[in-house]
Amino acid sequence: MSATLTRPAPRRLLPDPADPRLTVRVAGIDQTGAPVETTVTVERALTIFLNGQEIVTAMTIGDYPEYLALGYLLNQNMLRPDDVVTGVDYDEDLAVAVVRTQRATNYEEKLKKRVQTSGCAQGTVFGDLMEVIENARLPDAKLRTSWLYTLTHAINTTPSLYLEAGAIHGCVLCARDEIVVYMEDVGRHNAVDKIAGWMFRHGVPADDKIFYTTGRLTSEMVIKTVRMGIPILVSRSGFTAWGVELARKAGLTLIGRARGKRFVALAGEDRIVFDQDLAYVEEESARHRRKAADGD
Amino acid sequence: MSATLTRPAPRRLLPDPADPRLTVRVAGIDQTGAPVETTVTVERALTIFLNGQEIVTAMTIGDYPEYLALGYLLNQNMLRPDDVVTGVDYDEDLAVAVVRTQRATNYEEKLKKRVQTSGCAQGTVFGDLMEVIENARLPDAKLRTSWLYTLTHAINTTPSLYLEAGAIHGCVLCARDEIVVYMEDVGRHNAVDKIAGWMFRHGVPADDKIFYTTGRLTSEMVIKTVRMGIPILVSRSGFTAWGVELARKAGLTLIGRARGKRFVALAGEDRIVFDQDLAYVEEESARHRRKAADGD
Repeated sequence: MSATLTRPAPRRLLPDPADPRLTVRVAGIDQTGAPVETTVTVERALTIFLNGQEIVTAMTIGDYPEYLALGYLLNQNMLRPDDVVTGVDYDEDLAVAVVRTQRATNYEEKLKKRVQTSGCAQGTVFGDLMEVIENARLPDAKLRTSWLYTLTHAINTTPSLYLEAGAIHGCVLCARDEIVVYMEDVGRHNAVDKIAGWMFRHGVPADDKIFYTTGRLTSEMVIKTVRMGIPILVSRSGFTAWGVELARKAGLTLIGRARGKRFVALAGEDRIVFDQDLAYVEEESARHRRKAADGD
Repeated sequence: MSATLTRPAPRRLLPDPADPRLTVRVAGIDQTGAPVETTVTVERALTIFLNGQEIVTAMTIGDYPEYLALGYLLNQNMLRPDDVVTGVDYDEDLAVAVVRTQRATNYEEKLKKRVQTSGCAQGTVFGDLMEVIENARLPDAKLRTSWLYTLTHAINTTPSLYLEAGAIHGCVLCARDEIVVYMEDVGRHNAVDKIAGWMFRHGVPADDKIFYTTGRLTSEMVIKTVRMGIPILVSRSGFTAWGVELARKAGLTLIGRARGKRFVALAGEDRIVFDQDLAYVEEESARHRRKAADGD
């Protein structure tokens, strides 16, 4: 795609479990030794370049390589929100996505200095990400519990690769009680990176958004949400102690273990408005209870 | 620790959920707005060095930094099985683990050549890992289904950080129907890396082992199991298509969705011996059904 100008965002982006490129049928046997055929999710390598610099090879389902490349670079702070992206080139055969920017990015400068001593950029990037927490200015916002229950029900029942094949992560960008973008991916952070790329590409504001993830609320997940400027993060999974600490430092609302009518908030509780009568909220049905570590 | 000589392995290594360094109590509110206190797992940074070379900063619960450092380097093919490790130094205050080898490792040589063009080693390492699959010579071995059911029941009911605080991965090294090492970690691949480090450190053979993971059977998980030389990989989670393809190429037995009496085998089915009468296998109890993406 050519990305010189911000393009208007499609109103809504949902999973497409019927896309034949995303799953394959595989033959095997079951516990009785009988032959079975089952649906499994694909997983493809995508090598991301920033201008002339090879950055990383990610494992992805491959549905939105351009958004993934942009979002990965943004969430690693290698691409700054004010960088002008002059193009994103994706070559399916080479499995390469190249993000091109107008000026040499800050990241490339730093990398040149760092390779002498450390050879790999991970340390630098990690330090940069901590700055994200320290400089966080998250907006005032409200989360009505009625929105939360409408959202979790909608997310659990929307047709998805998870419901089709399992073994996949989901992340959802929401506004009030509506799903805006629902992305899935095999890679741990690819789903969130694809949403970040989508927001950047279409100039979508973060102030009024709610971010939902099927994955755990770790430090990385908190840092990425804060970097995106989204004030509220919700998960059906649990917390890590450092995830909680960083969310409190950044002023992020952190809600975990959101299943059926239950949830726990461990940071930014003041954004929550308890407007839902819990007598009218259903517990999750077995079909929509995500199974053991499928969200890996 | 000093690692000049291989040390005899302890007979068994199980999670220690009572270790006060691994969890903290955190205060928040629940869905009714009432105050709650809950247990969450810690998450700490550990920067791993190979000799003078900074390699990566991993997020870990921090229980076995030396095993994690060794196992990470082995599973990335940065440390070869025939490398002589002269020491592993861990500094808790600096959160640094340094693995020292007798000769400059192959990896360091390659890194020097690569930084000129790519700056980050990820591409190289990825290519190296594919060689692992191509050169795989996994041993003959059997997996009795009676062992499998005994193991999964034992793993589900062993006291663990998962049962205590959730939001954590588990990996288990097994021999026949017995747990040998059960490691947990917040980091996706740390649990498997800690087991690889433990095996290397104590010179434990892989031929007769079975590897169990709570996480998904992705390409990375398959590559790591093959690199460790373990012929059988079992998970309660699902598969990715590339995970299945690599397992077939390497001759690895790949069993997924192992819950209660059910499982699906999609590669290396010939190692399975169906000796268990399924009428005597119980379904999982609700308590031991791992919840939604907790294994993230």
